[in-house]
Amino acid sequence: MKTRTGVVALLSACAVGAVTSAWAAPPPTPVDSKALEAKFDAQIDPAEMGRWLKQLASEPNHVGSAHDKINAEWIAAQLKSWGWDAKIETFDVLYPTPISEALELVGGPGAPFKATLTEPPIPGDEPTFTKDALPAYVAFQGDGDVTAPLVYANYGMPEDYLALERMGISVKGKIVITRYGGGWRGLKPLLAQMHGAAGALIYSDPKDDGYATGDVYPKGPARPAHGFQRGSVADMPIYPGDPLTPGVGATKDAKRLDRKDAQVILKIPCLPISYGDAQVLLSALGGPVAPVGFRGSLPITYHVGGGDAAKVHLAVKSDWSLKTLYDVVGTLKGSEAPNDWIVRGNHHDGWVMGASDPLSGQIALLAEAKAFGVLMKGGWKPKRTIVYTSWDGEEPGLLGSTEWAETHGDELKAKGVVYINSDGNGRGFFRAEGSHAFQHFVNEISADVKDPETGVPVRDRARARLAVTTAEGGGGGRGEGQSPQMKAAANDPTKDIPLGALGSGSDYSSFLQHLGVPSIDFAYGGEGESGGVYHSLYDDYQHHSQFVDPGFVYDALLAKTVGRAVMRLADTDLPVQRYADFADTVSTYLDEVKKLADTKRDEARTQAKLLAGNAFALAADPTETHVNPASFAQSPAMNFAALEAAVAKLKTSAAAFDGALAAKGESLSKAQRVKLDAVVRPLDQTMLRPEGLPGRPWYMNMVYAPGRFTGYGAKTLPGVREALEERRFDDAQKYIGLTSQALEAYAAELDKATAVMNGA
Amino acid sequence: MKTRTGVVALLSACAVGAVTSAWAAPPPTPVDSKALEAKFDAQIDPAEMGRWLKQLASEPNHVGSAHDKINAEWIAAQLKSWGWDAKIETFDVLYPTPISEALELVGGPGAPFKATLTEPPIPGDEPTFTKDALPAYVAFQGDGDVTAPLVYANYGMPEDYLALERMGISVKGKIVITRYGGGWRGLKPLLAQMHGAAGALIYSDPKDDGYATGDVYPKGPARPAHGFQRGSVADMPIYPGDPLTPGVGATKDAKRLDRKDAQVILKIPCLPISYGDAQVLLSALGGPVAPVGFRGSLPITYHVGGGDAAKVHLAVKSDWSLKTLYDVVGTLKGSEAPNDWIVRGNHHDGWVMGASDPLSGQIALLAEAKAFGVLMKGGWKPKRTIVYTSWDGEEPGLLGSTEWAETHGDELKAKGVVYINSDGNGRGFFRAEGSHAFQHFVNEISADVKDPETGVPVRDRARARLAVTTAEGGGGGRGEGQSPQMKAAANDPTKDIPLGALGSGSDYSSFLQHLGVPSIDFAYGGEGESGGVYHSLYDDYQHHSQFVDPGFVYDALLAKTVGRAVMRLADTDLPVQRYADFADTVSTYLDEVKKLADTKRDEARTQAKLLAGNAFALAADPTETHVNPASFAQSPAMNFAALEAAVAKLKTSAAAFDGALAAKGESLSKAQRVKLDAVVRPLDQTMLRPEGLPGRPWYMNMVYAPGRFTGYGAKTLPGVREALEERRFDDAQKYIGLTSQALEAYAAELDKATAVMNGA
Repeated sequence: MKTRTGVVALLSACAVGAVTSAWAAPPPTPVDSKALEAKFDAQIDPAEMGRWLKQLASEPNHVGSAHDKINAEWIAAQLKSWGWDAKIETFDVLYPTPISEALELVGGPGAPFKATLTEPPIPGDEPTFTKDALPAYVAFQGDGDVTAPLVYANYGMPEDYLALERMGISVKGKIVITRYGGGWRGLKPLLAQMHGAAGALIYSDPKDDGYATGDVYPKGPARPAHGFQRGSVADMPIYPGDPLTPGVGATKDAKRLDRKDAQVILKIPCLPISYGDAQVLLSALGGPVAPVGFRGSLPITYHVGGGDAAKVHLAVKSDWSLKTLYDVVGTLKGSEAPNDWIVRGNHHDGWVMGASDPLSGQIALLAEAKAFGVLMKGGWKPKRTIVYTSWDGEEPGLLGSTEWAETHGDELKAKGVVYINSDGNGRGFFRAEGSHAFQHFVNEISADVKDPETGVPVRDRARARLAVTTAEGGGGGRGEGQSPQMKAAANDPTKDIPLGALGSGSDYSSFLQHLGVPSIDFAYGGEGESGGVYHSLYDDYQHHSQFVDPGFVYDALLAKTVGRAVMRLADTDLPVQRYADFADTVSTYLDEVKKLADTKRDEARTQAKLLAGNAFALAADPTETHVNPASFAQSPAMNFAALEAAVAKLKTSAAAFDGALAAKGESLSKAQRVKLDAVVRPLDQTMLRPEGLPGRPWYMNMVYAPGRFTGYGAKTLPGVREALEERRFDDAQKYIGLTSQALEAYAAELDKATAVMNGA
Repeated sequence: MKTRTGVVALLSACAVGAVTSAWAAPPPTPVDSKALEAKFDAQIDPAEMGRWLKQLASEPNHVGSAHDKINAEWIAAQLKSWGWDAKIETFDVLYPTPISEALELVGGPGAPFKATLTEPPIPGDEPTFTKDALPAYVAFQGDGDVTAPLVYANYGMPEDYLALERMGISVKGKIVITRYGGGWRGLKPLLAQMHGAAGALIYSDPKDDGYATGDVYPKGPARPAHGFQRGSVADMPIYPGDPLTPGVGATKDAKRLDRKDAQVILKIPCLPISYGDAQVLLSALGGPVAPVGFRGSLPITYHVGGGDAAKVHLAVKSDWSLKTLYDVVGTLKGSEAPNDWIVRGNHHDGWVMGASDPLSGQIALLAEAKAFGVLMKGGWKPKRTIVYTSWDGEEPGLLGSTEWAETHGDELKAKGVVYINSDGNGRGFFRAEGSHAFQHFVNEISADVKDPETGVPVRDRARARLAVTTAEGGGGGRGEGQSPQMKAAANDPTKDIPLGALGSGSDYSSFLQHLGVPSIDFAYGGEGESGGVYHSLYDDYQHHSQFVDPGFVYDALLAKTVGRAVMRLADTDLPVQRYADFADTVSTYLDEVKKLADTKRDEARTQAKLLAGNAFALAADPTETHVNPASFAQSPAMNFAALEAAVAKLKTSAAAFDGALAAKGESLSKAQRVKLDAVVRPLDQTMLRPEGLPGRPWYMNMVYAPGRFTGYGAKTLPGVREALEERRFDDAQKYIGLTSQALEAYAAELDKATAVMNGA
């Protein structure tokens, strides 16, 4: 119980805004916790983790592969052997297994050319000689066989189509080639389809993760000429998980949609290709020279195409039968609050060997689980229940975690305290994203774990990096793009480092955005440039151990970090949350969307003026095709009053809660603590509105969502922000209302919790 | 005289800040001027200009070449035939003629390799088969023969050396390879030399003007694989012109320095190379992967080197004898004020054929001269004297214009009203830079000339471009880097478009920065991407006529534009200047340097904090060499009071002058006008201080200078601004004083002129 003293004092300090260095220093961890954590750390053995990694990543382990099932069974067996109550839960999901792919340049300079679509093995790197790797392939594209002219659309993001339109280039009926980067993979073929394209290609330009970024594998970590990036192109911003069972678990007897009715499946064929193949196709393009922002690092003049000369044949065929997922779920039952669940997960399926993604995180999870087993043998018992999950099918669309969360939704809403995720991991800096009430908790953890390369707390390195980035101009200017909180934390070691908001791209999505279970995602990374083999054959044991985390010291550090978080959450009997952090963050988001509304109005005014003065045409080169941009919808003035009031109320309620917990937390009776927990545990579910977001009701969280048109990237206050961005002003006003309701409900629950502490 | 009414009204309006659309509309040009200008325009014959260009650019015409002299003689003969009093003035200048060059990779991957150092001819483009082109060569490098390891230093600018130092890479004793761009050519080997390098190479990366920017010649306008950029590396920011005769004309009997004492000549050997050659050298480099900002568009991983493996042999030998320059000077004597000189110039020497640079501007000058001849035959006589100059030796270091200006310095100070320059020209947008008192005058000209592609005044197109750039985010953000005046003019067609300040890079430098003669530089460009053959064999007639200005319509437009400026200046008998424009611009510069002082102080504070917290080391990758940046000198608080007072006084005096001219100009007696002219004509010489700028006394203008470490780029209020940038705080305070004196003297002369108008 002593643990909490320091923390609640801190909560109080923050709530009233009177932070001093004495207050803000990490609270002393009491001796028994310290000893327990030291014992935990002593169990983490990087060499053993390396051996696990070598075995788990020895063969391709995608959904449906033999090794995927073997890995699940082995993980379950390990958990059991360490004293966990472990089992495998299976789900039957739609999963397109590739049958055949073809891509040829059939017209234009360089034709005929048949794309290789294969990743050659690396001499000396044994697993790359496998015959079982998936071919060039993106999951949930639409099978088809098309021949059409080629157009280059840069990153394939909305602004790229605007640029093409300005040049008079249409992609209708064409095959669109885009490059990776600039936004989530799945949006590229989707936006091509929305613009009428007949097919889509995505290639990895050497500028983005190939030779321009570093020496290529095996000399260095970057993507070699014939490496390509597999991935999912399911329209996950609508809903993740099995396309046939939105909102419900894909159990044997679940009611399933017809495949043709599953709106998240692409209608046009799509393939990912290497820059080795792409260079031939791009060299064949005529038409205008590509704008500066479209140009990659291939030794060619990038053109956008537009004529009919460069013609491409693209054919993809898949087996659309159901496949079985193997989720491993292990439980340590809580001794005092067994119905409070601390859920922690990392997926185990990869696109090929998946050494860095996801198995580097998986071996951390295993190391934690083994260490907990040792602690239990020594007599320790968690007060709350710990649930360790090893997900299958994350890569094709968060399948394993989503189906499990949907299946157990009611139970998770009743019992879930927090979901803690990890995924790929590597050498470098501490990174965390998550629900902002846990911001101070995460800061405490990162202040208590030491960086193996420098010996300082990982929070100090993270802050040093933030400080240097802020000073030297990360993000395109001198600290541009950083929130006021980040700038403040960069230059003041007494301040907590802000958490980033969670978007999507890993298994926390269902918990946070569908069920309202607060979530945190932990990782290390940023040194050694590991992006180059992402989702390729070359993300294997040799690459990970040579370039991403030599000695597995950061994989081990991830285990120590997450293990601490799990232990502290499992053993506390007072909330670790600091709600002022959440309220302050939401207040910043409100400032941002208000500014966005102004920006959109200014843009519309400027645009109208430019069009009226024919400025676009006069500024263009008359010898090139020029099309004026479409004029913007009139931007009405938004009424933010409801949201302003809700945020103000939230701040007051959060301060009251934090203050009450600081003043009275330690003296609460057992009954009060149980009552307090009962209010706090489901608190984040107030952020959900049953309407969900426009066009995607599965996403019900009014504060955190993945962007409809950013994919993985987070959109905060998404109902309001995205509506403004897309100039859906009626929606913006409607979601100002819904978001206000959610925040008011949140504040009301906080008030209830405060009343419990005040003896109500 | 009616012409002036509208203008002086405008001056008045501007001075008191009460601009309305009625006031700011361009003043009506009276019928007689209009008719004269129409007659002038009718003489401009693009087809004839094209024939002149073909002849002038038919053979290499660098200093010392046979064709350079032939061109000068032909130009003089033409001027004479059109009724001008024309002659050739010669100067004898140091000019290193290349004897031999060698560059080899003698160690490292790819060795041995001998660089080609030659530009292959283009089939179908006859002049490129010449045997007389200068080889790979930069003028005023230091001959030498060195063998040393290679280091890649990006653009070779000061910040690039800081980046290398942070990586622990020294260039001492090494051969430094840099790429073109990011700053003036001559600074690259100079900074290498200052950092202890033994030799220097400069190559043209395809990212900056090669295949990444467009199709390469002959398919498109961009630089082909074996094209290289010749140029001067004389340290012109110290002084331009003949290195042996600083400050005086290089006449036969001039006193000359010993070559070893000429501080503007480089001490180390240097060669320019193509990316065809550079790719082999860069591929041989080991050491750290180059930072993101160092990476070009070659299909390689850029490394910075640092070890001894990649070794290069570089040898350059020149003939350092004197060569003769042929400046052509033609005069039309003024009928009323023969001692008021309107000087207009464009150089005639090129690096090879020089079709775009400089002959496209030269044919405009010739067309103007011919048209004036026709007007004179029709009875027109300019009131003031018009002096047309065709300079030799601009390319190696503004030799012809500088020696002429130094020789005739006293006469130019007594008689020079304005110097009007042009140089290379092409299809696109109107551009002008110059002395800000002429800002409104330039706006009037550009409002009266029609763009051939769109039919609107060229000012409208320039404004449309400014408006779109401002709205869409040119310069790295939404209108970032634009002055308040530019932003205002972008969105308000009643406002004048601001003039840019003149730095260096063409022949106005001596007039403006050494003699205090106000100057204006005119050009068209920005369409058709002509930069790719700059200073190469391929800048020839075919390239210019195919890609840069098909039909020579913009070369003809330049003649109409500059011809108007010359005619109006030659025929006015009241000043065209609006001094409020100058005062407002200087006021903006003052705001900028004050902000710069704050920024420098903030940077020093942040830097000290980061160093104290060891943030740089903690933010670095411990597996790579890391060196902390040197700590900054303490930044004292600057006292800007004197400069603030001087600018305030300048504004008041300018407003009074503009107001008096508006109110009384038309009613001034002939005697008053002569008296007024006598005060106004030498007015800009008050900007000169005999001390000159720190370390470069040749540059005496306290408002306009080329940057010491930007080369061509302008630095305004240079004594103050550059001292702040380089943290020479004592110099900054000293030049706040000197600049204040200059501006006070300027204001005092304005007051005298105002007194003349008020009947004093």
